[in-house]
Amino acid sequence: MQRASGLLPAAIRFQMNFNVRNSMAFNPISEIGEFGLIERLSAIAAPSLDNTPGVVVGIGDDCAVYRTGGPAVQVATTDLLVEHVHFDLLTTPMHHLGSKAISVNVSDICAMNALPEYALISIAVPGKMPVEMVEQLYAGMAHAASRYGFAIAGGDTSSSPSGLVISVTMTGQTAESRLTFRKGARPGEMICVTGTLGGSAAGLKLLMRERDLMLETLRNNEPYSKEMMAELQEYSRAIRCHLLPEARLDLVQFFHERGIVPTSMIDISDGLAADLRHICERSGVGAHIEESRIPVLSEARAIADELQDDALSWALSGGEDYELLFTLPKEQYDVISSNREISVIGEILPEEEGLLLTDIFGMTIDIGESAGGFDHFVP
Amino acid sequence: MQRASGLLPAAIRFQMNFNVRNSMAFNPISEIGEFGLIERLSAIAAPSLDNTPGVVVGIGDDCAVYRTGGPAVQVATTDLLVEHVHFDLLTTPMHHLGSKAISVNVSDICAMNALPEYALISIAVPGKMPVEMVEQLYAGMAHAASRYGFAIAGGDTSSSPSGLVISVTMTGQTAESRLTFRKGARPGEMICVTGTLGGSAAGLKLLMRERDLMLETLRNNEPYSKEMMAELQEYSRAIRCHLLPEARLDLVQFFHERGIVPTSMIDISDGLAADLRHICERSGVGAHIEESRIPVLSEARAIADELQDDALSWALSGGEDYELLFTLPKEQYDVISSNREISVIGEILPEEEGLLLTDIFGMTIDIGESAGGFDHFVP
Repeated sequence: MQRASGLLPAAIRFQMNFNVRNSMAFNPISEIGEFGLIERLSAIAAPSLDNTPGVVVGIGDDCAVYRTGGPAVQVATTDLLVEHVHFDLLTTPMHHLGSKAISVNVSDICAMNALPEYALISIAVPGKMPVEMVEQLYAGMAHAASRYGFAIAGGDTSSSPSGLVISVTMTGQTAESRLTFRKGARPGEMICVTGTLGGSAAGLKLLMRERDLMLETLRNNEPYSKEMMAELQEYSRAIRCHLLPEARLDLVQFFHERGIVPTSMIDISDGLAADLRHICERSGVGAHIEESRIPVLSEARAIADELQDDALSWALSGGEDYELLFTLPKEQYDVISSNREISVIGEILPEEEGLLLTDIFGMTIDIGESAGGFDHFVP
Repeated sequence: MQRASGLLPAAIRFQMNFNVRNSMAFNPISEIGEFGLIERLSAIAAPSLDNTPGVVVGIGDDCAVYRTGGPAVQVATTDLLVEHVHFDLLTTPMHHLGSKAISVNVSDICAMNALPEYALISIAVPGKMPVEMVEQLYAGMAHAASRYGFAIAGGDTSSSPSGLVISVTMTGQTAESRLTFRKGARPGEMICVTGTLGGSAAGLKLLMRERDLMLETLRNNEPYSKEMMAELQEYSRAIRCHLLPEARLDLVQFFHERGIVPTSMIDISDGLAADLRHICERSGVGAHIEESRIPVLSEARAIADELQDDALSWALSGGEDYELLFTLPKEQYDVISSNREISVIGEILPEEEGLLLTDIFGMTIDIGESAGGFDHFVP
């Protein structure tokens, strides 16, 4: 009771200090960045892991992992998508947004070599938003649920004073012997990636250009005609990569069928370079990859030519491709070589060698320093 | 691939229609309200429940319930808290906000007669917010985690263009034989409630009055002194009810120790009347409660006198008390009578009798119609 008395002045005083941005006392998050913030918050939350005996992995991998007494271990992940930060409703149909909000979570489950089972979905929606738009969003989610084979088991709805907010939490399961983490890669092992990279960044660039063009047309009171869109038809695959990415559950099923357990795995959400660095840091290793072996989406190359941009850098640091990046001992090459969705792009090195990229001219550079990944708080 | 081509014009056309609010075609959510929206979204999500065999309960109770093959069933709940909708940072210290964000989820777990195990926590934060404030928020969460005995196993952070958004998802477990739902109440059973009611609403009213007073003082450039706060000291318990509610995990432990399994249970988040109505609707029964037996917090009565308001209506429809409302066969009265935290406030009736309240003057009215509960979308 004593603590509650006098609560209000303290709260308001603190808040006022915040409002006048008393920079002597407080540090804005943008100064330490997203990864700095996660580190500080993890340190605060870590002691709580001792409260229950079943936690296998807490903060720091693609999913949390815990035991519930059954034959399989549970994995769980959560993603918060905020309008104007993670998506732009001007270029994102609600049905696609719903599907993507699901896919990014399934992708995290896949990165643990697990299968998705249940999702809880919360949304905060501006009250003036049409019901039909929210229904489209849920239809996209329900469609994805059928495709990936999990159940939408519950959630929460509320109003939002500004933009749309979507929170998806997903649980999955896998046999403990199949679990893969970011740690576990050893020197000499193959570095493998699924599908193609750079498509999502290429699609996003196109959508941004198109949006700007359309807004300018509208500002000038000119009619916006379908003919202006014609050129996008040939780039539908890249746009699809951005708006409707697919989690690679098919590859996880392939792993399970063939008895493959990658020594480390992550999904590519930040970009090949940053996500490879996550594996290297957690595993205490270095890596060497070759540009010529990186499976860049051919459409992304064509779009890069048109926009005078660089498709390789989209593959390395564009992010949001949601392909799987994993490592395997070389002896297992024969097991994966038949699968055309898997490319071997390099080799794990001892830690002191760094994170190396050899380009198509044979030049080798260390990309470890620049592979920071996307930071929400650093402009 | 065909579906992706032409995506953009469709997206933008849809969005433009939305922006000009073409009311011929679209219905804003505020017209159907939160419960209407939940109903429509549940219908879209429901078919996904067939994707996995283990779902016991989907949308519509305090938690989703599913089996993972272990001896206990899993329960899971999620809550999205949005600044300016669910909390006001001007009257809410971050440490308390963190604790409350946890307690409301633990309360949902308790309402299933289950124990909390793991939480995933996501936040979206304005980049200019001081790191120290976010650390306070997490310290409040971690403190609550120790108190309730669960682990913070993971989460997500991102920036927010406007206010703070907090998403908490929590899982818990209980033996399947102990599970309690909203459905299950039968005519003749006792209606029981834990602790006291009305405190949270009373505390909120005080805080709002104090905030307005402070803002006016500041607008007039007058100094805000501690003396102005003095009167709040005597109401610290009500303020604490609002800022630092406690989930009734102690009662769940009492149930487990005594082998009590309520026939139905819900936590009081919307207010006694609305939450009793939820039990009645799900169970297909009516109810009769007596004003004289409703445990209204005595401080709430004093505050109501001071503010010329009505403490009973705070108990009935103020909400956010996070006490447990449950039903039990009369034969079990002896098992609960020793626990002073439990009050018997009435009796379950056949459905056709309605939801009745007898006031202290002996007058009986049907409160079913007015027991709507809080709707985020209806002003």
